[in-house]
Amino acid sequence: MKVVGFQGILGAYSEVVAHRLFEGQKIKVKGFPTFEEVFKAVETKRISYGVVPIENSLAGSIHENYDHLMNHSVSITHEHYLRVRHALLGVQEASLKSIKKVYSHPQALQQCRSFLSAKEWEAVPYFDTAGSAKFVAASGDPTCAAIAGAHASEDYGLKILRNSIEDDKKNYTRFFVIQPGGSKVLKTSEAVCKTSICFALKNVAGCLHKCLSVFAIRDIDLYKIESRPQKGSPWVYLFYLDFKGSLEDETVKRCLDHLSEITTMIKVLGSYATAKM
Amino acid sequence: MKVVGFQGILGAYSEVVAHRLFEGQKIKVKGFPTFEEVFKAVETKRISYGVVPIENSLAGSIHENYDHLMNHSVSITHEHYLRVRHALLGVQEASLKSIKKVYSHPQALQQCRSFLSAKEWEAVPYFDTAGSAKFVAASGDPTCAAIAGAHASEDYGLKILRNSIEDDKKNYTRFFVIQPGGSKVLKTSEAVCKTSICFALKNVAGCLHKCLSVFAIRDIDLYKIESRPQKGSPWVYLFYLDFKGSLEDETVKRCLDHLSEITTMIKVLGSYATAKM
Repeated sequence: MKVVGFQGILGAYSEVVAHRLFEGQKIKVKGFPTFEEVFKAVETKRISYGVVPIENSLAGSIHENYDHLMNHSVSITHEHYLRVRHALLGVQEASLKSIKKVYSHPQALQQCRSFLSAKEWEAVPYFDTAGSAKFVAASGDPTCAAIAGAHASEDYGLKILRNSIEDDKKNYTRFFVIQPGGSKVLKTSEAVCKTSICFALKNVAGCLHKCLSVFAIRDIDLYKIESRPQKGSPWVYLFYLDFKGSLEDETVKRCLDHLSEITTMIKVLGSYATAKM
Repeated sequence: MKVVGFQGILGAYSEVVAHRLFEGQKIKVKGFPTFEEVFKAVETKRISYGVVPIENSLAGSIHENYDHLMNHSVSITHEHYLRVRHALLGVQEASLKSIKKVYSHPQALQQCRSFLSAKEWEAVPYFDTAGSAKFVAASGDPTCAAIAGAHASEDYGLKILRNSIEDDKKNYTRFFVIQPGGSKVLKTSEAVCKTSICFALKNVAGCLHKCLSVFAIRDIDLYKIESRPQKGSPWVYLFYLDFKGSLEDETVKRCLDHLSEITTMIKVLGSYATAKM
């Protein structure tokens, strides 16, 4: 049976994505304490796939995972968008009136700020959303609540005190599925494709402009560009780029060949079908 | 007396930067619970300046503050680089042997992972580093330690159990000083200048390439480019750009004028002297 890894424990948003993406297939999901351990488990083929968040529409990129994509021998096979809905969860005896403390990841607490500011509850930071649900369940305390996905209520026998408490309803997280080794070449006929690459610039003025020119002169649409400081060299940046097209396309091949002339390094992170939101 | 605001409580890294930047001047520092409140206090002139972190060489950009720069009527007057050194702090009776729990901001805990992994201590997340120092001091418990800047030991009467416990010694945070209103024009003769702007692209292919062209054809060096999802419009990006030069330069004026033809919005965030690391 295929094992799909994710960071966190049962009830994490990544676990929901794993089940959606592999729907109808027999899979086993496995939680890991850190993102790095997910990447390592995929790289060494101890698991078949990993599901990792890469970007949130409100909070921005999850930089750590960009670094891991660069530093591990894995490739992207799918992308997926999850609409993030936070729920307030409590033990069966709890009610909105009994709550005094709310536990969750600092980002989830911040994303529910309007809802929370109307209450006189103490907000307590926790490592992750599902972990806070597990903690509240274990406490058995009706004065404690957790903010997590509604699905975590089933995992830990909790009650949904209020659903969709996030301030901004346009809250989406983009996930990548990763597999061991280099990227498989996707047939463009299969779907609309997207390719993600990482590259390092030569240290000359106008170099980024030249790099984008190799796409512009071939009318290749860019979806996203992100700069990341290179570890060990503060303020020297790597660039992460998503563009339209598959590695199978002749134009894309020529484009990357051209790009290699004016960069010091290119890594292809994967070609995959463009997901719908 | 000038009041300089920062996010956090006494002993925060931002407070250290405030004292360094305004050294020799009579200032009063004031902590605020959130970054947004710092920006609001500056915008409404309740305080003279704000000091906010914008980017860390390991963790990347502090996206929230990019959003605030865009959405508040403030401008950047200075940049400053702080070498981040984390210390392990405990009460006077504590020693490395007595510690069982370590409190800090999740990012600080992560940045000291190698040091912590050699111990069998429980890592407990806290809202901020200085807050964890205050908490440990208040607890009076020799089994608890905090990870914060060494200076926080003086603020809360704590002992430095171990200094420089961060894994990566190339850990720098870049801070901005902000003032109310639009940016003052800096004389280029004063120093090497940097200008930060934010702009929105027209939704046409190759638009980012065109935008970078207006800099490239004038040989203007780019220091940093960052894309941020626009709130309320997931996956529509704003671009933040730092480049060499002052708003006073004729070339920069022409460049921004040219840029305005091919963007839907430009906001100048400030011109300031380039800081040394």
